[in-house]
Amino acid sequence: MEISAAQVKALRDKTGAGMMECKAALIEAKGNAEEATTILRKRGLAQATKRAGRSTQQGQVGAYIHAGGKIGVLVEVNCESDFVARTADFANLVKELAMQVAAADPRYVRREDVPAEEVDKERAIYRAQMEGAGKPPQVIEKIIDGKLNSFYEKIVLLEQPSIRDGAMKVSDLVAQTIAKVGENVSIARFARFKVGEGE
Amino acid sequence: MEISAAQVKALRDKTGAGMMECKAALIEAKGNAEEATTILRKRGLAQATKRAGRSTQQGQVGAYIHAGGKIGVLVEVNCESDFVARTADFANLVKELAMQVAAADPRYVRREDVPAEEVDKERAIYRAQMEGAGKPPQVIEKIIDGKLNSFYEKIVLLEQPSIRDGAMKVSDLVAQTIAKVGENVSIARFARFKVGEGE
Repeated sequence: MEISAAQVKALRDKTGAGMMECKAALIEAKGNAEEATTILRKRGLAQATKRAGRSTQQGQVGAYIHAGGKIGVLVEVNCESDFVARTADFANLVKELAMQVAAADPRYVRREDVPAEEVDKERAIYRAQMEGAGKPPQVIEKIIDGKLNSFYEKIVLLEQPSIRDGAMKVSDLVAQTIAKVGENVSIARFARFKVGEGE
Repeated sequence: MEISAAQVKALRDKTGAGMMECKAALIEAKGNAEEATTILRKRGLAQATKRAGRSTQQGQVGAYIHAGGKIGVLVEVNCESDFVARTADFANLVKELAMQVAAADPRYVRREDVPAEEVDKERAIYRAQMEGAGKPPQVIEKIIDGKLNSFYEKIVLLEQPSIRDGAMKVSDLVAQTIAKVGENVSIARFARFKVGEGE
Protein backbone atom coordinates (compact mmCIF):
# COMPACT_ATOMS: atom_id res chain seq x y z
CA MET A 1 0.00 0.00 0.00
CA GLU A 2 1.53 3.26 -1.19
CA ILE A 3 0.50 6.31 0.87
CA SER A 4 1.12 9.66 -0.82
CA ALA A 5 2.44 12.77 0.91
CA ALA A 6 -0.81 14.51 -0.08
CA GLN A 7 -2.88 11.89 1.78
CA VAL A 8 -0.73 12.32 4.89
CA LYS A 9 -1.02 16.08 4.71
CA ALA A 10 -4.81 15.98 4.27
CA LEU A 11 -5.19 13.70 7.31
CA ARG A 12 -2.85 15.92 9.30
CA ASP A 13 -4.85 19.03 8.38
CA LYS A 14 -8.05 17.26 9.36
CA THR A 15 -6.95 15.73 12.65
CA GLY A 16 -4.05 17.80 13.89
CA ALA A 17 -2.08 14.56 14.52
CA GLY A 18 1.64 14.23 13.70
CA MET A 19 3.02 13.25 10.28
CA MET A 20 4.31 9.83 11.34
CA GLU A 21 1.11 8.97 13.21
CA CYS A 22 -0.97 9.99 10.20
CA LYS A 23 1.14 7.88 7.85
CA ALA A 24 0.92 4.83 10.17
CA ALA A 25 -2.86 5.22 10.51
CA LEU A 26 -3.28 5.51 6.75
CA ILE A 27 -1.22 2.37 6.14
CA GLU A 28 -3.32 0.52 8.71
CA ALA A 29 -6.54 1.82 7.13
CA LYS A 30 -5.28 0.90 3.64
CA GLY A 31 -5.52 4.52 2.55
CA ASN A 32 -9.10 5.08 3.76
CA ALA A 33 -9.02 8.58 5.30
CA GLU A 34 -12.14 8.20 7.42
CA GLU A 35 -10.99 4.92 8.90
CA ALA A 36 -7.55 6.41 9.54
CA THR A 37 -9.23 9.25 11.44
CA THR A 38 -11.06 6.74 13.63
CA ILE A 39 -7.78 4.90 14.30
CA LEU A 40 -6.08 8.15 15.33
CA ARG A 41 -8.99 9.03 17.58
CA LYS A 42 -8.90 5.63 19.26
CA ARG A 43 -5.24 6.26 20.00
CA GLY A 44 -6.09 9.66 21.39
CA LEU A 45 -4.10 11.36 18.66
CA ALA A 46 -6.89 13.26 16.94
CA GLN A 47 -9.49 15.68 18.17
CA ALA A 48 -13.11 14.61 18.34
CA THR A 49 -14.86 17.41 16.59
CA LYS A 50 -12.13 19.11 14.65
CA ARG A 51 -13.41 19.68 11.18
CA ALA A 52 -11.64 19.98 7.89
CA GLY A 53 -12.62 23.62 7.62
CA ARG A 54 -10.18 24.27 4.83
CA SER A 55 -11.67 26.51 2.23
CA THR A 56 -10.96 25.01 -1.14
CA GLN A 57 -12.83 27.83 -2.78
CA GLN A 58 -13.50 31.49 -2.37
CA GLY A 59 -16.87 33.16 -2.36
CA GLN A 60 -19.59 34.68 -0.24
CA VAL A 61 -22.53 33.55 1.86
CA GLY A 62 -25.49 35.89 1.58
CA ALA A 63 -28.76 36.00 3.49
CA TYR A 64 -32.15 37.49 2.78
CA ILE A 65 -35.02 37.78 5.21
CA HIS A 66 -38.43 38.23 3.65
CA ALA A 67 -41.93 39.07 4.86
CA GLY A 68 -40.84 40.31 8.30
CA GLY A 69 -38.99 37.15 9.20
CA LYS A 70 -41.46 34.60 7.90
CA ILE A 71 -39.09 33.46 5.14
CA GLY A 72 -35.30 33.37 5.29
CA VAL A 73 -32.74 32.39 2.69
CA LEU A 74 -29.05 31.57 2.84
CA VAL A 75 -27.02 31.16 -0.34
CA GLU A 76 -23.37 30.33 -0.99
CA VAL A 77 -21.79 31.45 -4.24
CA ASN A 78 -18.23 30.46 -5.13
CA CYS A 79 -15.59 32.09 -7.26
CA GLU A 80 -11.85 31.62 -7.69
CA SER A 81 -10.29 34.50 -5.75
CA ASP A 82 -11.13 36.42 -2.61
CA PHE A 83 -10.54 39.58 -4.64
CA VAL A 84 -13.52 38.78 -6.86
CA ALA A 85 -15.59 37.65 -3.85
CA ARG A 86 -15.28 41.21 -2.53
CA THR A 87 -16.38 43.00 -5.70
CA ALA A 88 -19.74 44.73 -6.01
CA ASP A 89 -20.64 42.67 -9.10
CA PHE A 90 -20.22 39.46 -7.15
CA ALA A 91 -22.08 40.80 -4.10
CA ASN A 92 -24.96 41.88 -6.35
CA LEU A 93 -25.27 38.37 -7.75
CA VAL A 94 -25.34 36.87 -4.26
CA LYS A 95 -28.07 39.30 -3.20
CA GLU A 96 -30.07 38.70 -6.38
CA LEU A 97 -29.89 34.92 -5.91
CA ALA A 98 -31.02 35.12 -2.29
CA MET A 99 -34.06 37.16 -3.34
CA GLN A 100 -34.75 34.74 -6.20
CA VAL A 101 -34.76 31.78 -3.80
CA ALA A 102 -37.04 33.62 -1.37
CA ALA A 103 -39.56 34.49 -4.08
CA ALA A 104 -39.43 31.51 -6.43
CA ASP A 105 -38.83 28.72 -3.93
CA PRO A 106 -36.55 26.38 -5.92
CA ARG A 107 -35.65 23.02 -4.44
CA TYR A 108 -32.37 22.23 -6.18
CA VAL A 109 -29.45 24.21 -7.58
CA ARG A 110 -29.09 22.28 -10.81
CA ARG A 111 -30.95 19.69 -12.86
CA GLU A 112 -28.47 16.94 -11.90
CA ASP A 113 -29.41 17.45 -8.25
CA VAL A 114 -33.02 16.31 -8.77
CA PRO A 115 -33.25 12.66 -7.61
CA ALA A 116 -33.90 10.19 -10.44
CA GLU A 117 -36.91 8.72 -8.57
CA GLU A 118 -38.54 12.14 -8.49
CA VAL A 119 -38.08 12.54 -12.25
CA ASP A 120 -39.40 9.02 -12.89
CA LYS A 121 -42.45 9.73 -10.77
CA GLU A 122 -43.16 12.93 -12.72
CA ARG A 123 -42.80 11.05 -16.02
CA ALA A 124 -45.27 8.38 -14.83
CA ILE A 125 -47.76 11.03 -13.79
CA TYR A 126 -47.56 12.87 -17.14
CA ARG A 127 -47.96 9.56 -18.97
CA ALA A 128 -51.04 8.63 -16.93
CA GLN A 129 -52.54 12.06 -17.60
CA MET A 130 -52.43 11.38 -21.35
CA GLU A 131 -53.81 7.87 -21.25
CA GLY A 132 -56.70 7.39 -23.60
CA ALA A 133 -56.04 10.70 -25.35
CA GLY A 134 -55.34 8.70 -28.52
CA LYS A 135 -52.03 10.44 -29.28
CA PRO A 136 -49.22 8.60 -31.11
CA PRO A 137 -46.36 7.44 -28.83
CA GLN A 138 -43.73 9.81 -30.26
CA VAL A 139 -46.06 12.77 -29.66
CA ILE A 140 -46.66 11.60 -26.11
CA GLU A 141 -42.88 11.45 -25.50
CA LYS A 142 -42.47 14.98 -26.87
CA ILE A 143 -45.23 16.24 -24.58
CA ILE A 144 -43.67 14.47 -21.59
CA ASP A 145 -40.29 16.07 -22.36
CA GLY A 146 -41.96 19.45 -22.55
CA LYS A 147 -43.72 18.94 -19.23
CA LEU A 148 -40.49 17.80 -17.63
CA ASN A 149 -38.77 20.96 -18.82
CA SER A 150 -41.48 23.06 -17.16
CA PHE A 151 -41.04 20.97 -14.03
CA TYR A 152 -37.30 21.72 -13.99
CA GLU A 153 -37.99 25.40 -14.59
CA LYS A 154 -40.09 25.43 -11.43
CA ILE A 155 -37.83 23.55 -9.06
CA VAL A 156 -34.27 24.09 -10.33
CA LEU A 157 -32.74 27.44 -9.37
CA LEU A 158 -30.44 27.76 -12.40
CA GLU A 159 -33.32 27.09 -14.80
CA GLN A 160 -35.86 29.41 -13.19
CA PRO A 161 -36.74 32.64 -15.00
CA SER A 162 -35.18 35.56 -13.14
CA ILE A 163 -37.72 37.28 -10.87
CA ARG A 164 -36.28 40.61 -12.01
CA ASP A 165 -36.32 39.91 -15.75
CA GLY A 166 -38.45 36.99 -16.88
CA ALA A 167 -36.65 36.88 -20.25
CA MET A 168 -33.49 35.74 -18.47
CA LYS A 169 -32.81 32.51 -16.65
CA VAL A 170 -30.90 32.47 -13.38
CA SER A 171 -28.08 30.72 -15.26
CA ASP A 172 -27.89 33.82 -17.49
CA LEU A 173 -27.40 36.01 -14.43
CA VAL A 174 -24.51 33.80 -13.38
CA ALA A 175 -23.05 33.93 -16.91
CA GLN A 176 -23.28 37.73 -16.88
CA THR A 177 -21.32 37.87 -13.62
CA ILE A 178 -18.70 35.48 -15.01
CA ALA A 179 -18.26 37.82 -17.99
CA LYS A 180 -17.98 40.86 -15.70
CA VAL A 181 -15.53 39.48 -13.14
CA GLY A 182 -13.52 37.24 -15.50
CA GLU A 183 -13.58 34.23 -13.18
CA ASN A 184 -15.65 31.10 -12.92
CA VAL A 185 -18.64 31.63 -10.62
CA SER A 186 -20.95 28.89 -9.36
CA ILE A 187 -23.85 28.53 -6.95
CA ALA A 188 -22.71 26.10 -4.26
CA ARG A 189 -25.92 25.65 -2.24
CA PHE A 190 -28.87 27.40 -0.68
CA ALA A 191 -31.28 26.96 2.21
CA ARG A 192 -34.78 28.44 2.47
CA PHE A 193 -36.71 28.37 5.72
CA LYS A 194 -40.38 29.30 5.91
CA VAL A 195 -41.84 29.55 9.39
CA GLY A 196 -43.86 26.48 10.27
CA GLU A 197 -42.79 24.46 7.25
CA GLY A 198 -40.28 22.45 9.25
CA GLU A 199 -38.39 19.59 7.67
CA MET B 1 -61.46 1.88 4.99
CA GLU B 2 -62.68 4.84 7.04
CA ILE B 3 -61.41 8.23 5.80
CA SER B 4 -61.74 11.08 8.30
CA ALA B 5 -62.81 14.60 7.44
CA ALA B 6 -59.43 15.77 8.73
CA GLN B 7 -57.60 13.58 6.21
CA VAL B 8 -59.74 14.93 3.39
CA LYS B 9 -59.16 18.49 4.49
CA ALA B 10 -55.40 17.99 4.75
CA LEU B 11 -55.23 16.54 1.24
CA ARG B 12 -57.41 19.34 -0.07
CA ASP B 13 -55.15 21.95 1.54
CA LYS B 14 -52.12 20.26 0.05
CA THR B 15 -53.37 19.70 -3.49
CA GLY B 16 -56.09 22.24 -4.07
CA ALA B 17 -58.35 19.44 -5.41
CA GLY B 18 -62.06 19.21 -4.56
CA MET B 19 -63.46 17.51 -1.47
CA MET B 20 -65.03 14.57 -3.30
CA GLU B 21 -61.95 13.96 -5.44
CA CYS B 22 -59.77 14.02 -2.33
CA LYS B 23 -62.00 11.55 -0.54
CA ALA B 24 -62.08 9.18 -3.54
CA ALA B 25 -58.29 9.35 -3.90
CA LEU B 26 -57.79 8.65 -0.20
CA ILE B 27 -60.09 5.63 -0.33
CA GLU B 28 -58.21 4.32 -3.37
CA ALA B 29 -54.87 4.92 -1.60
CA LYS B 30 -56.13 3.24 1.57
CA GLY B 31 -55.58 6.42 3.54
CA ASN B 32 -52.00 7.02 2.39
CA ALA B 33 -51.82 10.78 1.78
CA GLU B 34 -48.76 10.73 -0.46
CA GLU B 35 -50.20 8.04 -2.69
CA ALA B 36 -53.50 9.90 -2.82
CA THR B 37 -51.62 12.99 -3.99
CA THR B 38 -50.04 10.99 -6.80
CA ILE B 39 -53.46 9.64 -7.79
CA LEU B 40 -54.91 13.14 -7.93
CA ARG B 41 -51.96 14.35 -9.99
CA LYS B 42 -52.35 11.51 -12.46
CA ARG B 43 -55.95 12.58 -12.90
CA GLY B 44 -54.81 16.16 -13.43
CA LEU B 45 -56.65 17.25 -10.29
CA ALA B 46 -53.68 18.44 -8.25
CA GLN B 47 -50.90 20.88 -8.98
CA ALA B 48 -47.40 19.62 -9.56
CA THR B 49 -45.40 21.80 -7.26
CA LYS B 50 -48.00 23.13 -4.87
CA ARG B 51 -46.63 22.71 -1.42
CA ALA B 52 -48.31 22.26 1.90
CA GLY B 53 -47.11 25.71 2.93
CA ARG B 54 -49.54 25.87 5.80
CA SER B 55 -47.92 27.36 8.84
CA THR B 56 -48.80 25.13 11.73
CA GLN B 57 -46.71 27.33 13.97
CA GLN B 58 -45.70 30.92 14.39
CA GLY B 59 -42.19 32.23 14.73
CA GLN B 60 -39.33 33.96 13.00
CA VAL B 61 -36.49 33.11 10.67
CA GLY B 62 -33.32 35.02 11.47
CA ALA B 63 -30.02 35.31 9.60
CA TYR B 64 -26.52 36.27 10.61
CA ILE B 65 -23.60 36.88 8.28
CA HIS B 66 -20.18 36.62 9.90
CA ALA B 67 -16.61 37.39 8.88
CA GLY B 68 -17.53 39.52 5.86
CA GLY B 69 -19.67 36.88 4.24
CA LYS B 70 -17.44 33.86 4.85
CA ILE B 71 -19.96 32.30 7.27
CA GLY B 72 -23.73 32.59 7.14
CA VAL B 73 -26.41 31.25 9.45
CA LEU B 74 -30.15 30.82 9.14
CA VAL B 75 -32.24 29.84 12.16
CA GLU B 76 -35.97 29.23 12.62
CA VAL B 77 -37.48 29.67 16.07
CA ASN B 78 -41.11 28.83 16.74
CA CYS B 79 -43.65 30.14 19.24
CA GLU B 80 -47.41 29.91 19.55
CA SER B 81 -48.67 33.31 18.39
CA ASP B 82 -47.61 35.84 15.79
CA PHE B 83 -47.95 38.46 18.54
CA VAL B 84 -45.09 36.89 20.48
CA ALA B 85 -43.10 36.32 17.26
CA ARG B 86 -43.05 40.11 16.83
CA THR B 87 -41.82 40.97 20.33
CA ALA B 88 -38.31 42.26 21.00
CA ASP B 89 -37.64 39.45 23.50
CA PHE B 90 -38.34 36.85 20.84
CA ALA B 91 -36.33 38.69 18.18
CA ASN B 92 -33.40 38.95 20.58
CA LEU B 93 -33.43 35.19 21.11
CA VAL B 94 -33.46 34.57 17.34
CA LYS B 95 -30.50 36.93 16.88
CA GLU B 96 -28.61 35.39 19.80
CA LEU B 97 -29.13 31.87 18.44
CA ALA B 98 -27.94 32.84 14.95
CA MET B 99 -24.73 34.26 16.44
CA GLN B 100 -24.31 31.17 18.62
CA VAL B 101 -24.53 28.89 15.57
CA ALA B 102 -22.06 31.06 13.65
CA ALA B 103 -19.51 31.02 16.47
CA ALA B 104 -19.95 27.58 18.05
CA ASP B 105 -20.75 25.52 14.92
CA PRO B 106 -23.25 23.00 16.34
CA ARG B 107 -24.42 20.17 14.11
CA TYR B 108 -27.81 19.30 15.62
CA VAL B 109 -30.55 21.16 17.47
CA ARG B 110 -31.15 18.55 20.16
CA ARG B 111 -29.56 15.39 21.52
CA GLU B 112 -32.26 13.19 19.95
CA ASP B 113 -31.23 14.45 16.51
CA VAL B 114 -27.75 12.89 16.73
CA PRO B 115 -27.83 9.63 14.72
CA ALA B 116 -27.46 6.51 16.88
CA GLU B 117 -24.56 5.23 14.71
CA GLU B 118 -22.62 8.40 15.42
CA VAL B 119 -23.10 7.95 19.18
CA ASP B 120 -22.14 4.27 18.96
CA LYS B 121 -18.99 5.17 17.07
CA GLU B 122 -18.02 7.72 19.73
CA ARG B 123 -18.61 5.15 22.47
CA ALA B 124 -16.38 2.61 20.67
CA ILE B 125 -13.63 5.18 20.30
CA TYR B 126 -13.74 6.16 24.00
CA ARG B 127 -13.69 2.50 24.98
CA ALA B 128 -10.66 1.79 22.77
CA GLN B 129 -8.86 4.80 24.26
CA MET B 130 -9.14 3.24 27.73
CA GLU B 131 -8.10 -0.27 26.76
CA GLY B 132 -5.31 -1.59 28.94
CA ALA B 133 -5.67 1.26 31.43
CA GLY B 134 -6.65 -1.37 34.03
CA LYS B 135 -9.79 0.46 35.19
CA PRO B 136 -12.81 -1.48 36.52
CA PRO B 137 -15.71 -1.77 34.02
CA GLN B 138 -18.12 0.42 36.00
CA VAL B 139 -15.52 3.19 36.13
CA ILE B 140 -14.96 2.89 32.39
CA GLU B 141 -18.72 3.25 31.77
CA LYS B 142 -18.81 6.38 33.96
CA ILE B 143 -15.90 7.88 32.02
CA ILE B 144 -17.57 7.03 28.70
CA ASP B 145 -20.79 8.73 29.83
CA GLY B 146 -18.81 11.80 30.83
CA LYS B 147 -17.03 11.93 27.49
CA LEU B 148 -20.33 11.51 25.65
CA ASN B 149 -21.76 14.44 27.56
CA SER B 150 -18.84 16.62 26.46
CA PHE B 151 -19.41 15.39 22.91
CA TYR B 152 -23.06 16.49 23.06
CA GLU B 153 -22.03 19.84 24.52
CA LYS B 154 -19.89 20.42 21.45
CA ILE B 155 -22.27 19.38 18.69
CA VAL B 156 -25.80 19.93 20.10
CA LEU B 157 -27.00 23.53 19.97
CA LEU B 158 -29.31 23.32 23.01
CA GLU B 159 -26.53 21.84 25.15
CA GLN B 160 -23.78 24.23 24.12
CA PRO B 161 -22.63 26.84 26.64
CA SER B 162 -23.89 30.25 25.56
CA ILE B 163 -21.18 32.24 23.74
CA ARG B 164 -22.33 35.30 25.67
CA ASP B 165 -22.40 33.72 29.14
CA GLY B 166 -20.56 30.43 29.50
CA ALA B 167 -22.39 29.68 32.75
CA MET B 168 -25.63 29.27 30.78
CA LYS B 169 -26.57 26.68 28.24
CA VAL B 170 -28.44 27.60 25.08
CA SER B 171 -31.44 25.72 26.52
CA ASP B 172 -31.37 28.18 29.43
CA LEU B 173 -31.62 31.10 26.99
CA VAL B 174 -34.68 29.46 25.46
CA ALA B 175 -36.17 28.88 28.93
CA GLN B 176 -35.59 32.54 29.82
CA THR B 177 -37.48 33.64 26.72
CA ILE B 178 -40.33 31.24 27.52
CA ALA B 179 -40.59 32.83 30.98
CA LYS B 180 -40.56 36.34 29.49
CA VAL B 181 -43.10 35.84 26.70
CA GLY B 182 -45.33 33.30 28.46
CA GLU B 183 -45.52 30.94 25.49
CA ASN B 184 -43.74 27.80 24.45
CA VAL B 185 -40.68 28.59 22.32
CA SER B 186 -38.61 26.05 20.42
CA ILE B 187 -35.73 26.01 17.96
CA ALA B 188 -37.05 24.41 14.78
CA ARG B 189 -33.87 24.18 12.68
CA PHE B 190 -30.75 25.97 11.56
CA ALA B 191 -28.36 26.02 8.62
CA ARG B 192 -24.75 27.20 8.68
CA PHE B 193 -22.77 27.76 5.49
CA LYS B 194 -19.05 28.37 5.50
CA VAL B 195 -17.51 29.32 2.17
CA GLY B 196 -15.74 26.36 0.55
CA GLU B 197 -17.04 23.80 3.02
CA GLY B 198 -19.70 22.59 0.58
CA GLU B 199 -21.91 19.66 1.36
